[in-house]
Amino acid sequence: MRDIHATSPDRGRLRLRSVGISGIRKPLTVQRRGGTHTLAVTFHVAVDLPSERKGSDLSRNAEILAEVVDETATRPTESLESACSHLARELLVRHPYANEASVEASAEYFLRQGISEEKRSFEDYTLIAQADALRDPSGAVSLTRTIGAEAVGMTACPCAMETCRDQLTAEFPQLASPELKNLPMITHNQRNRTRLVFQLPETAEVEADDLIGAIEAAQSSPTYAILKRGDEAAVVLQAHRHPKFVEDVLRDLLASLPERFPSAPDSTVVVASTVSEESIHKYNVEASHEVTLGELRHSSSP
Amino acid sequence: MRDIHATSPDRGRLRLRSVGISGIRKPLTVQRRGGTHTLAVTFHVAVDLPSERKGSDLSRNAEILAEVVDETATRPTESLESACSHLARELLVRHPYANEASVEASAEYFLRQGISEEKRSFEDYTLIAQADALRDPSGAVSLTRTIGAEAVGMTACPCAMETCRDQLTAEFPQLASPELKNLPMITHNQRNRTRLVFQLPETAEVEADDLIGAIEAAQSSPTYAILKRGDEAAVVLQAHRHPKFVEDVLRDLLASLPERFPSAPDSTVVVASTVSEESIHKYNVEASHEVTLGELRHSSSP
Amino acid sequence: MRDIHATSPDRGRLRLRSVGISGIRKPLTVQRRGGTHTLAVTFHVAVDLPSERKGSDLSRNAEILAEVVDETATRPTESLESACSHLARELLVRHPYANEASVEASAEYFLRQGISEEKRSFEDYTLIAQADALRDPSGAVSLTRTIGAEAVGMTACPCAMETCRDQLTAEFPQLASPELKNLPMITHNQRNRTRLVFQLPETAEVEADDLIGAIEAAQSSPTYAILKRGDEAAVVLQAHRHPKFVEDVLRDLLASLPERFPSAPDSTVVVASTVSEESIHKYNVEASHEVTLGELRHSSSP
Amino acid sequence: MRDIHATSPDRGRLRLRSVGISGIRKPLTVQRRGGTHTLAVTFHVAVDLPSERKGSDLSRNAEILAEVVDETATRPTESLESACSHLARELLVRHPYANEASVEASAEYFLRQGISEEKRSFEDYTLIAQADALRDPSGAVSLTRTIGAEAVGMTACPCAMETCRDQLTAEFPQLASPELKNLPMITHNQRNRTRLVFQLPETAEVEADDLIGAIEAAQSSPTYAILKRGDEAAVVLQAHRHPKFVEDVLRDLLASLPERFPSAPDSTVVVASTVSEESIHKYNVEASHEVTLGELRHSSSP
Repeated sequence: MRDIHATSPDRGRLRLRSVGISGIRKPLTVQRRGGTHTLAVTFHVAVDLPSERKGSDLSRNAEILAEVVDETATRPTESLESACSHLARELLVRHPYANEASVEASAEYFLRQGISEEKRSFEDYTLIAQADALRDPSGAVSLTRTIGAEAVGMTACPCAMETCRDQLTAEFPQLASPELKNLPMITHNQRNRTRLVFQLPETAEVEADDLIGAIEAAQSSPTYAILKRGDEAAVVLQAHRHPKFVEDVLRDLLASLPERFPSAPDSTVVVASTVSEESIHKYNVEASHEVTLGELRHSSSP
Repeated sequence: MRDIHATSPDRGRLRLRSVGISGIRKPLTVQRRGGTHTLAVTFHVAVDLPSERKGSDLSRNAEILAEVVDETATRPTESLESACSHLARELLVRHPYANEASVEASAEYFLRQGISEEKRSFEDYTLIAQADALRDPSGAVSLTRTIGAEAVGMTACPCAMETCRDQLTAEFPQLASPELKNLPMITHNQRNRTRLVFQLPETAEVEADDLIGAIEAAQSSPTYAILKRGDEAAVVLQAHRHPKFVEDVLRDLLASLPERFPSAPDSTVVVASTVSEESIHKYNVEASHEVTLGELRHSSSP
Repeated sequence: MRDIHATSPDRGRLRLRSVGISGIRKPLTVQRRGGTHTLAVTFHVAVDLPSERKGSDLSRNAEILAEVVDETATRPTESLESACSHLARELLVRHPYANEASVEASAEYFLRQGISEEKRSFEDYTLIAQADALRDPSGAVSLTRTIGAEAVGMTACPCAMETCRDQLTAEFPQLASPELKNLPMITHNQRNRTRLVFQLPETAEVEADDLIGAIEAAQSSPTYAILKRGDEAAVVLQAHRHPKFVEDVLRDLLASLPERFPSAPDSTVVVASTVSEESIHKYNVEASHEVTLGELRHSSSP
Repeated sequence: MRDIHATSPDRGRLRLRSVGISGIRKPLTVQRRGGTHTLAVTFHVAVDLPSERKGSDLSRNAEILAEVVDETATRPTESLESACSHLARELLVRHPYANEASVEASAEYFLRQGISEEKRSFEDYTLIAQADALRDPSGAVSLTRTIGAEAVGMTACPCAMETCRDQLTAEFPQLASPELKNLPMITHNQRNRTRLVFQLPETAEVEADDLIGAIEAAQSSPTYAILKRGDEAAVVLQAHRHPKFVEDVLRDLLASLPERFPSAPDSTVVVASTVSEESIHKYNVEASHEVTLGELRHSSSP
């Protein structure tokens, strides 16, 4: 059989940055902190294509995924990001004409959480991972890893809270009394989705559960599947005692990272974004930032 | 050319309920209450198929849509539902072997609304419409129309409000004073999407704007694109003075219909559903009901 | 604490058909045919609400899910549909004021398939299940189960194939020779998604893998993740030797059920639908039907 | 009323790159080539936030959108990208503390197209536009514009075509005759979505319809809503006479740009991507590239 992919391109003899397969779903079994999770992962797997070659051998991408991912059903892997790294290296082996390989993965992830020990149940999060492999002219391969997580929590607006306090104090003068100064006031609150992503050198490790922990600590409150009547009040109170703009969520999250991730290197690039699905509007409010851990560590912010 | 569609089916000689095209997008221009709107509509257009015929002439569906919908660019139609009725009748003309035709349509719809006259701007809603045509053995065609709307607003939870009041009163005993009895208390609030659909005989008319009006009156508060600082407080206060479960939204909506739609016939079937995107949970809370306008009119509810 | 849910509704004293939670995600571990699968399931869990009660105790829904679903992490259940049945019965226990309970579930499902034994890898499908429980006035509970599956495969159009043959024969007269009568001709082909759902009495059993088997046999060809060069041709040939309209897919599927499911009762309601994402159009082509297994068995179709 | 946004951040005194609103839908009326289009646009509108300020005045974003976009209902604008430029400049006026403003927009767009003049009807495309405004220390504002389009068409695989020819020739030896050398062979074909985006200096103009024209010329064939029997064959033949990998679509598209856009400057950054929704797989195949028009013009590709 003639290998059409290996022939010369008909026209437009151009190197292409990325050719691959996307939207492929695979079950990945991960052994983690004592338990086994099966993640339903969406993969995007691609390599570059030199100018003299018509097509990329895409069937190899599906084969590599089958070998590396399907086999975790019997032999679990360490983490989503380690599977990505393994795949990225293997792509450069099977596509000898390529010098760059990229593996992107996202998956739903369940953690047992609760407002108290006996009310724990599975809460759902999103994990993302990426591995980028680069082959230099000597043939040596270097790798960059990305690991991230997204968590849904809650924000309560600090601004509407103060204007509501003003308006209600006009109606209820007792609210001006010093004893009621700290009474939490009504405001709009809503679902908030926050994402935290670290781009690391290959050797550095970050635990996804710790990313989720950092996010939930920066929101006005985490949220839970099981809340009995008193628990609902506790979550509402927690959120109204920590009212936050998306700007606050983002800054509080970034400010907490140096202490929470002491061993990640200064060169780690942090990409953080947060979206509040405003209850008083039909649209969302968003904030995002990109910064290195080194910059966060050495900024003189109080 | 041989007409493959008109041949006999190879196997499984069975009448099929519905064969058609879906996910086709078309711009429909509507002349309404003095203004012209262009709706980007998604259509599903289908007829039944008799047992002795292999295929439905699907190219006719796209032709009918082009004739009826595309021509509104120069000659606007009256409403989304009248376009659906027109299409359903035409389907039975062009598919002489069919006895049932169904046209389903949904579209985004913009209305200028605001918390005050000078803060009006376009808010987005969803319109839905359906027409079902039936040809009886004499060849006469009867038609049922469906018209509906969906609006996003806000709910505030009445239960968490009371448990927060209890917990805060323990901490701030002044809250027990009679003067503060009506002070609105903190609770969780969130986006609420409510849908109201009427199935009517062909001759009855209902205005989509009135469906939207009924929905927004039943939510804890409507929401707006433009809210300056004081306006945000007004919306938050409105919602906290009308705290509602999804059950309350649905019952208040249904209870309001007899007065709001006096001329719709008793036989009108009302399908209503409401979803609150709970701020304290990662999941939604929903309620739905189906009832005739006659039943709503003659129920002895207070 | 005052139980707001148990108070009388403020207005619109109406029984509501369905009040519950939706969009809640849970990992369900299933023991099946020798293997263990973890399904990431989306649940909708609801009961009816009597007219004299303001709200449904929704926190019980999340608790039941945690008890029944979360515990499968350590003790796997038999199937998605058996989990739904268990949940539906339990809902009526914990909501003593309700008489109807409904549990709907959908999940991605992976099966190892391949064009040959050594090229097997995980292919993704969708499972759906539903259980509806009804409490009669004597307090006895009866249950209906629904189980379904969706599979993505391929269709090739039989009509364009014949018109292409006509046009190409005008250009290449050799095609008229009897030896080339059976040469498969070019046509448009595309992804096809087909869904097959059985509504059964509680005691009847249907295996999801068998639903998937029936669907894939009715499409022009199943599709696979791993296809080397010769395999691609084999799939293309299989599809072009079995060109099918959506009407053919649906009829062939329905016609195959009596033989494939001999033990399912006549009263089983079958709901089938199929969608081809036409490569020559930007829109889809669809067909759907609803029929009982009894009707399929006793129809005199050849 | 106290202006909470203007206070100092509580913690994490960090400049943030982007704070704004997203997912806001607005109808934009555009006057273009003699016709008026109403686009339903999704906007993301954001500015940066200095380190000493707690919050961004987000209500101004919604006000600007209402002023600029809503007023096109009576006074149409020139294009989606000119509306974005106007919005980006206005954002820096109303947020005097900000130095960067970004406006991203995407919209569905309908063009009357057809395989022949009398079979024209509206086909749907996607438009995207972005404007990035930067205020330098002197207060001068410079602007970068992005304009792009996405079109759905069709690809037919050149590789499976050759392996099918080989396999069929074994079965039908007549296919080896020189007269049948150019007979188009069966292969898999499918929907292809291709996106072409230009990043330009403020003064350069590009017409969205020309981007769509370039994309459709690079696919194996464009697709149409209305195709009678002979037309279907014509599209299928067109696609099979121009079989293309995603790599070919991308290269042919990029190679055509110097001739199609002679007046766009060399500094224009072109971002192109293409996705084929493979009919023989459940996953997609993708290619993407980024290059300047200057590089495309001066590459010595044949």
